[in-house]
Amino acid sequence: PYTVLICVVIVVLLTLGNLRGIRESSKAFGLPAYAFIFAIVSMLIAGFIKLKSGYVPPEAPVKHVDTGALSFFAMTYIMLNAFSNGCAAVTGIEAVSNAVPNFKKPAVKHAKMVMLLLAAFVILLFGGVSVLSYAFRAGHEEGKTVLIQIAQQIFGAGPMFYFVMASSFVILAMAANTAYSGFPLLLSVVAREGYAPRQLSMRGDRLSYSNGIILLSAAAILLIVVFRANVTSLIGLYAIGVFISFTLSQSGMFVRWLRNKGKHWRLKAFINGFGAFVTAVVVVIIAITKFRQGAWIVVFLVPILIFLMMKVKKHYTAVARQLRMAPEELETIDVEKDVYRNRVIVPVESVNKASIRALRYAKTISDNVVAFNVSIDEESAVKIREKYALLQTDIPLVVKYSPFRKVVEPLLKFIESAEYNYQKGDMITVILPQFSVRAWWHAILHNHTRLFIEKELLKHKHIVVSVMPLQLKNDDFVLKNQKHK
Amino acid sequence: PYTVLICVVIVVLLTLGNLRGIRESSKAFGLPAYAFIFAIVSMLIAGFIKLKSGYVPPEAPVKHVDTGALSFFAMTYIMLNAFSNGCAAVTGIEAVSNAVPNFKKPAVKHAKMVMLLLAAFVILLFGGVSVLSYAFRAGHEEGKTVLIQIAQQIFGAGPMFYFVMASSFVILAMAANTAYSGFPLLLSVVAREGYAPRQLSMRGDRLSYSNGIILLSAAAILLIVVFRANVTSLIGLYAIGVFISFTLSQSGMFVRWLRNKGKHWRLKAFINGFGAFVTAVVVVIIAITKFRQGAWIVVFLVPILIFLMMKVKKHYTAVARQLRMAPEELETIDVEKDVYRNRVIVPVESVNKASIRALRYAKTISDNVVAFNVSIDEESAVKIREKYALLQTDIPLVVKYSPFRKVVEPLLKFIESAEYNYQKGDMITVILPQFSVRAWWHAILHNHTRLFIEKELLKHKHIVVSVMPLQLKNDDFVLKNQKHK
Repeated sequence: PYTVLICVVIVVLLTLGNLRGIRESSKAFGLPAYAFIFAIVSMLIAGFIKLKSGYVPPEAPVKHVDTGALSFFAMTYIMLNAFSNGCAAVTGIEAVSNAVPNFKKPAVKHAKMVMLLLAAFVILLFGGVSVLSYAFRAGHEEGKTVLIQIAQQIFGAGPMFYFVMASSFVILAMAANTAYSGFPLLLSVVAREGYAPRQLSMRGDRLSYSNGIILLSAAAILLIVVFRANVTSLIGLYAIGVFISFTLSQSGMFVRWLRNKGKHWRLKAFINGFGAFVTAVVVVIIAITKFRQGAWIVVFLVPILIFLMMKVKKHYTAVARQLRMAPEELETIDVEKDVYRNRVIVPVESVNKASIRALRYAKTISDNVVAFNVSIDEESAVKIREKYALLQTDIPLVVKYSPFRKVVEPLLKFIESAEYNYQKGDMITVILPQFSVRAWWHAILHNHTRLFIEKELLKHKHIVVSVMPLQLKNDDFVLKNQKHK
Repeated sequence: PYTVLICVVIVVLLTLGNLRGIRESSKAFGLPAYAFIFAIVSMLIAGFIKLKSGYVPPEAPVKHVDTGALSFFAMTYIMLNAFSNGCAAVTGIEAVSNAVPNFKKPAVKHAKMVMLLLAAFVILLFGGVSVLSYAFRAGHEEGKTVLIQIAQQIFGAGPMFYFVMASSFVILAMAANTAYSGFPLLLSVVAREGYAPRQLSMRGDRLSYSNGIILLSAAAILLIVVFRANVTSLIGLYAIGVFISFTLSQSGMFVRWLRNKGKHWRLKAFINGFGAFVTAVVVVIIAITKFRQGAWIVVFLVPILIFLMMKVKKHYTAVARQLRMAPEELETIDVEKDVYRNRVIVPVESVNKASIRALRYAKTISDNVVAFNVSIDEESAVKIREKYALLQTDIPLVVKYSPFRKVVEPLLKFIESAEYNYQKGDMITVILPQFSVRAWWHAILHNHTRLFIEKELLKHKHIVVSVMPLQLKNDDFVLKNQKHK
């Protein structure tokens, strides 16, 4: 019942760790791997000794089906299903190829050695567990993996049983981390090429691709919650994804040999071409047999993602084209000439330190400044006029009425009015204050009007919005200080 | 099973309706009320006729408990529980008092009449249903309200049965709307007094208090989802809220009579004082008997809310004090004097139309302009320098390196550097472009860097951020247009 919660907690922990910039290569990751290998190898040895000493396992919980009675198609389906299940065992070898640049030199030689070791361990561990599971008659049992069933029979409920469980748990949680080392990096490359939102290519404070990490975690949590952390519903999603990437890389190598030729290129092209063919067949098999176990997500999502990526690329290309200027064009441009007529409007809610600061700044950037106030009625208009008159300034104050204290509409109306006399080529700067808050929750209390007004005004290409920061003092300090009484 | 979904859909519909500005007073709201009254009155008449004609209802599903065996405390608890349940029947009369200003003149006379009518209908409908429920031996039955049980016995599964059901459903959905007429308005008053975030006092496009409406809906949906739309878990929350407001209004009237005196003030004060006392007792009773059915939320939430509101008020007061200037102070201020030294920095990603536009604007607001570029390496630095040299301008270009294309850090470092020679009293304006997008999803693709840089820069009180809008053309138009090829 807590599976979903536990999974989400693990994802959140991994997210935080990766945002802070942990590395997959860090040595801490080695220990659990050794522990896991040690646990499984011990189990295999103990298991075979137990079998030799004449142990007879209990009846299998699932009865053996009389396969002779099955039709040819059903048989084929079962075989293909078993094949696609088995294929999942070799996923992970791509991690070695991906990591080649990270190996010590000579990288290729080391990588080959690792690949061999990996293959040896897969055969030893996976093969050994397969043999044992047959010998111990482990079958499908609700809520109990084959590993648990075997370990239970071999070790009882002793400390070794819990060691096998714990090391499997840790290694699986860590396996989830491989996605964090690859996906955000991949996404950043895609984003840099213009096929994904550009912010995905930006590194965060600690140089991790924080947006990609957050996106990955959000997707993972969504899948966990929607599918209630049920592995069966998602195994297809995983397997098909892996084999699509195998197919793509094999095809890539195949094309490479065809293009580059080189020594033994026919043989090499044949090997990779055959690899591409086999993995492509696996993709199709998984797409069919595991369609309802998550493969449908990939079948539908991949075309949609490709479509979206094309749209994004098209948009970025269009933007770049609009902004681009040829060298010939650049030479004709004189930045000093054709400048805009520079006019400033300072919205003034009341005459206080913030508005005086804004007026002062306005004066430094232009001689054409207007202070602009929206009052709800005649009375408050008179009040602000009186207060404003106390200031020594030649900046005129314009007061407009709005019963609901709307600011944007009266301001835009004023700009378009004959009174303001807007001319083509005028650039209007509107100065808005921004409170720099001292406590995070103060952010809820400020700047919303500013953001709204800014958003509305920026829809007009002749209006520049200048945001002036205003630092707030500590509440208690102000309220105790005599100066502010 | 779909209760939660149906409830959420109703809330969403009400939200959309209220955001668009439907009014409770609209005539459309009258029809369902009449239909409901008609349905219940018909049921009462048919029910009594059926009883007169000798109908004997089936055995009650719940057996009668031998009350003699109950202890005094248990008995008291049951009585109080029944009392607090019954009190829920008179909630709603406050809607009439709240709406007094909306009545046709003479408002008070009309309101009194409505109140009388309301009382009559409550007695008729609620009393009638109570009597029938006893006569028809309706009791607690899972998933079947008393109304359903009675209607089923009286009408069978005929059209009248469905009419009773349908009109009850509609009237209940509409009852949910009363919150929308009161809560956002109340919140706006609280916000205007400075006890809640100010944006709650702002009217949206259609003059509805959109933030308050959204807040209310979010809270309602949260309660529905958390309590799985289970009425029993929330009846206490509702009842205690209503009776707290009764107590407050009665106490208010009591205090008013004590202060203002006037004709018969002793009698009136006694009536309201007694009312306050009785309703306060009800509050305590509900808080105890319904504690686990939602009353706990109010018991804990109200003190927390009051605490938060005090904090908010304190903050707004502190801000107002900081900004306030006395008339004597205002007179000493000469906006024309003590102006800032005005310096402008234009971050330039590449030399294109956007950056040229920004440089041009910079030139109009200051003579002290610097173009600032962050390059990832020497090569791209040379490239941008070459391109920039083509322009005819005396604005110097400063290039800094950052392998990860960070902008904020190099910029702030440059401002603090001896090279830039920042003096106290300088006001630096940084000009950033803002793309005005044409499609909503384009917003995902732009302006994130701008917002991030703006947020970081505004932490410094001597930096003003000027946002320059840049209107994008339609993608297809640009890509097809020869000029942009």
